[in-house]
Amino acid sequence: MAEPRFAIGVDFGTESARAVLVDVADGRELGVEVYAYRNGVIDERLPTPDSDVVLGPDWALQDPNDYIETFKRAVPGVVARAGIDPAAVIGIGIDFTACTMLPTKADGTPLCFLDEYRREPHAWVKLWKHHAAQPEADDVNRVAAEMGETWLRRYGGKISSEWFFPKALQILREAPGVYRAADRLIEAADWAIWQLTGVETRNNCTAGYKAIWSAEEGFPNPAFFAALDPRFENVVDEKMSRSIVRLGQVAGRLSGRAAAWTGLRPGIAVAVANVDAHVSAPAVSVTKPGTLVAIMGTSTCHIILSDSAPVIPGACGVVRDGVIPGFFGYEAGQSAVGDIFGWFVERCVPPIYHEQARERGVSVHEILEEAAAALRPGESGLLALDWWNGNRSVLVDADLSGLMVGMTLATQAPEMYRALIEATAFGTRAIIDAFEAGGIKIDRVVACGGLPERNRLLMQIYADVTGRSLRVAASAQTPALGSAMFAAVAAGPAAGGYATIEAAAAKMAHLREGAYQPIEEARRVYDVLYAEYVRLHDLFGRGGNPSMKTLKRLRVAARDPSRTPA
Amino acid sequence: MAEPRFAIGVDFGTESARAVLVDVADGRELGVEVYAYRNGVIDERLPTPDSDVVLGPDWALQDPNDYIETFKRAVPGVVARAGIDPAAVIGIGIDFTACTMLPTKADGTPLCFLDEYRREPHAWVKLWKHHAAQPEADDVNRVAAEMGETWLRRYGGKISSEWFFPKALQILREAPGVYRAADRLIEAADWAIWQLTGVETRNNCTAGYKAIWSAEEGFPNPAFFAALDPRFENVVDEKMSRSIVRLGQVAGRLSGRAAAWTGLRPGIAVAVANVDAHVSAPAVSVTKPGTLVAIMGTSTCHIILSDSAPVIPGACGVVRDGVIPGFFGYEAGQSAVGDIFGWFVERCVPPIYHEQARERGVSVHEILEEAAAALRPGESGLLALDWWNGNRSVLVDADLSGLMVGMTLATQAPEMYRALIEATAFGTRAIIDAFEAGGIKIDRVVACGGLPERNRLLMQIYADVTGRSLRVAASAQTPALGSAMFAAVAAGPAAGGYATIEAAAAKMAHLREGAYQPIEEARRVYDVLYAEYVRLHDLFGRGGNPSMKTLKRLRVAARDPSRTPA
Repeated sequence: MAEPRFAIGVDFGTESARAVLVDVADGRELGVEVYAYRNGVIDERLPTPDSDVVLGPDWALQDPNDYIETFKRAVPGVVARAGIDPAAVIGIGIDFTACTMLPTKADGTPLCFLDEYRREPHAWVKLWKHHAAQPEADDVNRVAAEMGETWLRRYGGKISSEWFFPKALQILREAPGVYRAADRLIEAADWAIWQLTGVETRNNCTAGYKAIWSAEEGFPNPAFFAALDPRFENVVDEKMSRSIVRLGQVAGRLSGRAAAWTGLRPGIAVAVANVDAHVSAPAVSVTKPGTLVAIMGTSTCHIILSDSAPVIPGACGVVRDGVIPGFFGYEAGQSAVGDIFGWFVERCVPPIYHEQARERGVSVHEILEEAAAALRPGESGLLALDWWNGNRSVLVDADLSGLMVGMTLATQAPEMYRALIEATAFGTRAIIDAFEAGGIKIDRVVACGGLPERNRLLMQIYADVTGRSLRVAASAQTPALGSAMFAAVAAGPAAGGYATIEAAAAKMAHLREGAYQPIEEARRVYDVLYAEYVRLHDLFGRGGNPSMKTLKRLRVAARDPSRTPA
Repeated sequence: MAEPRFAIGVDFGTESARAVLVDVADGRELGVEVYAYRNGVIDERLPTPDSDVVLGPDWALQDPNDYIETFKRAVPGVVARAGIDPAAVIGIGIDFTACTMLPTKADGTPLCFLDEYRREPHAWVKLWKHHAAQPEADDVNRVAAEMGETWLRRYGGKISSEWFFPKALQILREAPGVYRAADRLIEAADWAIWQLTGVETRNNCTAGYKAIWSAEEGFPNPAFFAALDPRFENVVDEKMSRSIVRLGQVAGRLSGRAAAWTGLRPGIAVAVANVDAHVSAPAVSVTKPGTLVAIMGTSTCHIILSDSAPVIPGACGVVRDGVIPGFFGYEAGQSAVGDIFGWFVERCVPPIYHEQARERGVSVHEILEEAAAALRPGESGLLALDWWNGNRSVLVDADLSGLMVGMTLATQAPEMYRALIEATAFGTRAIIDAFEAGGIKIDRVVACGGLPERNRLLMQIYADVTGRSLRVAASAQTPALGSAMFAAVAAGPAAGGYATIEAAAAKMAHLREGAYQPIEEARRVYDVLYAEYVRLHDLFGRGGNPSMKTLKRLRVAARDPSRTPA
């Protein structure tokens, strides 16, 4: 029997990071160690000694030192806890939220580490959910449309304020000194790998999905950037890199400094960085077309592989080799899922259910799920549009809002709760329909993330609504597992790893026993309800009825009396 | 100074009746005495000794003995409590829920008083909200449409299951023996007057609004009734009367027996019976066209006077002299108003607001109203259709249901509460618009009933949404006050009363000081919101989007698996 070999995956999230130690042979997880970022999400004041630098609305920053601390604490922690020989770890991989980016000096030092820039908000890491670059995103979209940029349709026709260039442009506009001082503008994912290896790399996943890069066309051309701002013309050549490394490659070898942080052997393989959602696909055994991967939490991210790259309306992006080398990887998304259920439980559930939950020592969600599960499809008499946080796919419209129809004086909370679950399932079906209409077949669904773990009713409804069998990931840490799998691939067979991510997935990725199968009778009812959903979806989402826009406009005007409502 | 003169009004409600003692000179209310019906609303089992007769779904009965008990207890009670000389009471009037009807012998004895019929549900009083005659109402509507009955359009194109002939037809079909044994089928209002006077009368208000009678055309002709059932052909001549007495007349004189019950002088005037909503108009000083009277409680009933009788789509009925002699009286309605607010507070408000209410010793409604009042028009970002119990006016469609649009993850309970208030105000404006489109001008609104008393925010929103000044009744007992006013008219000037209801109203009816005036800025915003309301109203209410119907159908099918959902 061969010596056991291990890989480590580190998943950098919004409030914390977690390191998972994985047996390369079979994907068994030996342990997880969480590091809660000391400075968490910085959205009110910079963590300077006096806390006197106040951030504007929609700002969200992180401290790059928290990423280093993750390497220093979570990695040695998980190894020590498992009691294995650190020398048996053959590789390390990471995944990150994206686009989460920062300005650094040429040697990788974050500007915010320098005294000179410590009190300058733009010197810090802009977290994915930093939404203050919306004016810049609007300009990117406007200019791209005016100049007929062909890449726009790869991204569903609209670039998000969360992405790389709006954030970079915001730095330039609001803090030109920081922009000038930044030798590099880089994804935090790639920056973290740089810290492990001493080598700057740029992964094709964040470049493709968040920085408008493609293997065929590269980045947008300088004329486009110049049209946004003359000083922005050469942002790629001045601050970034045109050398983009494919997922599954080795980014470099663990440096002596990083080996000292982590307690791992210097020289082991460090994989190219990845994005948390995308890295989940191989971790749920999905390495070829035909399956929708749904990473379900507060929102849902969908990953779909394809042999070709037709334009799919409302997809968030399509990148060759962006998920699994050899395939086009599509990303799509629903901007609120668990968030809607959370909103409902917090804002709309009367005391009686809270009391029941307390008495029985369970959550209000569980009480509602139990009552909702007793209802038959259609029995609630309700139908909702799941747009509480706008609609990403397939409408790409943040100004849409929620709708519920069918309430009577007899309507109860569990009925509304079920209708909201169904609405998110209809939203998923609309995305599947958009892909199939574009020629990309989807035969099954695999779900991972926080929601599928806890909620059997949700999974059955998704199976019934989509009419597809649904499997759930075995791992509760799919992103970290996926990162560990890419680490094993980076290490390669010679070091006890794998030659390809497919080979790694075949051994290391697992699904829970049992599938949720669509129930024919439920499916028939949901087909009728879905037809009504589509009718409402198209009516309110494609301009037929403008009430959601009018309501947003009136709300903004009411809060700012200087604007006129009409 | 003249001797003080008093009149008594008795308002027969759903769970109780109340007698109010009123000073004829100025309408001052000296007291109110409530009698809670011993048998309340009978909707599960007949109040027989063994309680073994079970009622079907949608049944709702009353016990006529409770009306007699009201005369025996509430009337002497209010007189005694006030300490006045009973001989100073010059007249008595009553109002009733309608259509509330019963079968009796020729001498007025209710069939349910007879041992032979005591265990027969059809022998009891069918209360207004007895909804089990829906199949009969469907047949009345179908046959009327087939035969081109011209009266149908006086009632918004549809007869309710609550009205007289569906209830009578249900007796015939389900209990032909009771139907045969019934010498009379009569409104409880008229039956109660019969008990006071010994004389059977039929008032033109219930006849006109609930029994398809008009001064010009009388009742539907026998051929119509025969088409429903051959045995029903002569229902009017066999069981009812073609002699219909106008409001404001004397029904008769207080009999010795009734004088003994009530402690009043035998021979005083007894007014023709009235309906609770309709009798409220003069009690809020409305005796001529131009004003919408809104009787606002769990639902809202609207009364409008007019010199002419154009067809108004969705009005519940129009009757010459049906409210104030000399005018056409229109009735319209919103099927749920306070009920929607009650539903929301009971079903959709999280514990925090309940805790606040407890701490401050106020109702949850008050907590929500306070928070909702702090919002500016449009600030909630929400819009609702107020159809939780269907829509009476102007769509006449019980199968419509509620809708709310605009929810985001930031939406809070007080915002939804305000949106529901606004929705009912938009519903009222739609009714006003329908009347004005038909040529009946409405310059102002006068509100009475339970809701306007308590809820200042509601009143201001109604003023802002309708763009009309709004006054509130001074009396908390407008129906009983109106009945007392008609009693004073029945007594006439010779006895110290009045010659006309207008004269009585001029002295006895009062409004609260101060009017709610529309605020121009709010009005402008509400005009925009109302345009969206109308768009949704017409889309979902006039067949453009069928989702409410589909949802009801699926709900019924889900609860009865033998039906097919599609």
